[in-house]
Amino acid sequence: MTTSPGGSGGRKPTIREVAKAAGVSYATVSRVMNGANWVSPQARSAVEEAIRTTGYKVNAHARSLATGRTDSVAFLLTEEYQLLFADPTFSLLLRDIAEAMAEHSMTLVLLVAGTQRERESVERYLSAGHVDGVMLISSHEQDPLLPSLLDHKLPLVACGLPLGHETAVSSVSVDESGSARTMTEYLLGRGHQRIAMIAGPPDTPGGHFRLEGFREAMGDHFDPDLVVQGDYSRASGRRAMGELLASGRDFDAVFAANDLMAVGAIGALDAAGVAVPADVAVAGFDDSGLAARNHPPLTTMRQPWKTLSQQMVEVLVALIRGGELRHVTLPTELVVRESA
Amino acid sequence: MTTSPGGSGGRKPTIREVAKAAGVSYATVSRVMNGANWVSPQARSAVEEAIRTTGYKVNAHARSLATGRTDSVAFLLTEEYQLLFADPTFSLLLRDIAEAMAEHSMTLVLLVAGTQRERESVERYLSAGHVDGVMLISSHEQDPLLPSLLDHKLPLVACGLPLGHETAVSSVSVDESGSARTMTEYLLGRGHQRIAMIAGPPDTPGGHFRLEGFREAMGDHFDPDLVVQGDYSRASGRRAMGELLASGRDFDAVFAANDLMAVGAIGALDAAGVAVPADVAVAGFDDSGLAARNHPPLTTMRQPWKTLSQQMVEVLVALIRGGELRHVTLPTELVVRESA
Repeated sequence: MTTSPGGSGGRKPTIREVAKAAGVSYATVSRVMNGANWVSPQARSAVEEAIRTTGYKVNAHARSLATGRTDSVAFLLTEEYQLLFADPTFSLLLRDIAEAMAEHSMTLVLLVAGTQRERESVERYLSAGHVDGVMLISSHEQDPLLPSLLDHKLPLVACGLPLGHETAVSSVSVDESGSARTMTEYLLGRGHQRIAMIAGPPDTPGGHFRLEGFREAMGDHFDPDLVVQGDYSRASGRRAMGELLASGRDFDAVFAANDLMAVGAIGALDAAGVAVPADVAVAGFDDSGLAARNHPPLTTMRQPWKTLSQQMVEVLVALIRGGELRHVTLPTELVVRESA
Repeated sequence: MTTSPGGSGGRKPTIREVAKAAGVSYATVSRVMNGANWVSPQARSAVEEAIRTTGYKVNAHARSLATGRTDSVAFLLTEEYQLLFADPTFSLLLRDIAEAMAEHSMTLVLLVAGTQRERESVERYLSAGHVDGVMLISSHEQDPLLPSLLDHKLPLVACGLPLGHETAVSSVSVDESGSARTMTEYLLGRGHQRIAMIAGPPDTPGGHFRLEGFREAMGDHFDPDLVVQGDYSRASGRRAMGELLASGRDFDAVFAANDLMAVGAIGALDAAGVAVPADVAVAGFDDSGLAARNHPPLTTMRQPWKTLSQQMVEVLVALIRGGELRHVTLPTELVVRESA
């Protein structure tokens, strides 16, 4: 008979061994594993460390029975299905979040609630307790499902600041206004002064704060007549650029609040025979893959998709285990390519 | 006080009124609504008709409590997340199935299980009873989750014939070999005789039966050296065409088992300076949107995506209500565009 490195003779480690290694009682280990709230942070981390060192395997089924948990969370997209496929940021988030969830041996359940009927059935599903928590993936402030989810006291984390609900919903977002300032300062530094902005909807964090950062950085150069609003779709970027061109106002650069609108704007400039970046420089926001593939490749602000996804998962898992509401803000990075 | 058209004075119709309209007992109506098995087909359809005519509203929450049902089904994709976004057929199916599910006031839960870890957690989720049934969306015969799903006696419907499991899993598919015969006969009718095929994996219904139909229609013209296998991805179509070109064998047309591979093949032909369709005609299979957008637009076999999706939902909902295993086969349509 061989002896395993752990010295436990090949047997699976028991809860008592975990308790001994952690220097806490059996009951404390059990409370940590069952996700109870009344455990000191010190005891919790000692137990988590001991679970790692002893190689103790938490039985998910048993834990689920004991805690009433499902070991799953929802990726809730309150947009039309089309957008899931049209906007590459959703697929990036979905893939990276799924990967991070797998690290926790939890199931990711994708729910799409773009229509009233879908919202009703998704609300029933969520209120019936089929998931332990919800990630809110919507570009809009007024997530139509939010009141009901708050009523059911489901742990929630929003991607982007949940405008108006910051005290009730955790969030992970990028520094929206700081990022917009960085891009605007870059464009100013390249000698542009007549800079237009294609903003997002004002009821979205990206619409609100990216415009705010742009305005701050522009200072005296800010011209409200050069701000046009889109809805983050490629078509709206094209329309917005059409309006700017039709207005006859002079501009030598445009900052779009996301890459899809930047690509749409470039389409309108191309169609009008305006060269990018020679006549008009175009910058985007996101760097979701589209920016690098575009002709010309887009200068943009890179959101840290992987970190953002991991943080969404960490914050939600912590909430489910009884943690506190948190708002995580992440930095972005200026990526200079050819369009500006 | 006004009287509603139904003559029930504005009151909601009761189960007793439904029973009276259907000419059955109160207990029978209740059994139908609770999805019990032991109801004759005649009584079931009489009750369903009476529910429609009386305008009786089944209370989903009450029914769920009574039946232990969740009023949800899973769209289970046992492929990597990337494929959900790379292959437009999945997004078409997802959108149309979601729409059909909404008609039934049921929730569609998307689960992706492409990795071993994802499969384990999805298996736990499904076996814990969080959905009433599962739609198997995988291109492969050996769906790795199938044995476990069968063990748990979950109602299942596969998209495409579940090779080797036809007696246990319902399915909705197109007439694969008939469709391939139609396309091959079209190409032969256009004067092509040296027709190559880029087939799908032989362990998939599309790989197996589309090749079978091609072989049948080719008859004496069939040349096994002109059959190359891909994996339905665009890259594999490009590789397959590269092999055919490198082999030095003569061919004047190629039939790819899906549009993505056809587009990949056209890329390889372009790169080699071979004109499509002047030098080599290229035909695909699916007509998922990609075919019409491609340059040149693809001649292809159109799968009836909407009907296919609706039938998947109908078959699964019927199974959940105690119906029998069914295999539905749907016709396809030849769509002639520019590539062949």
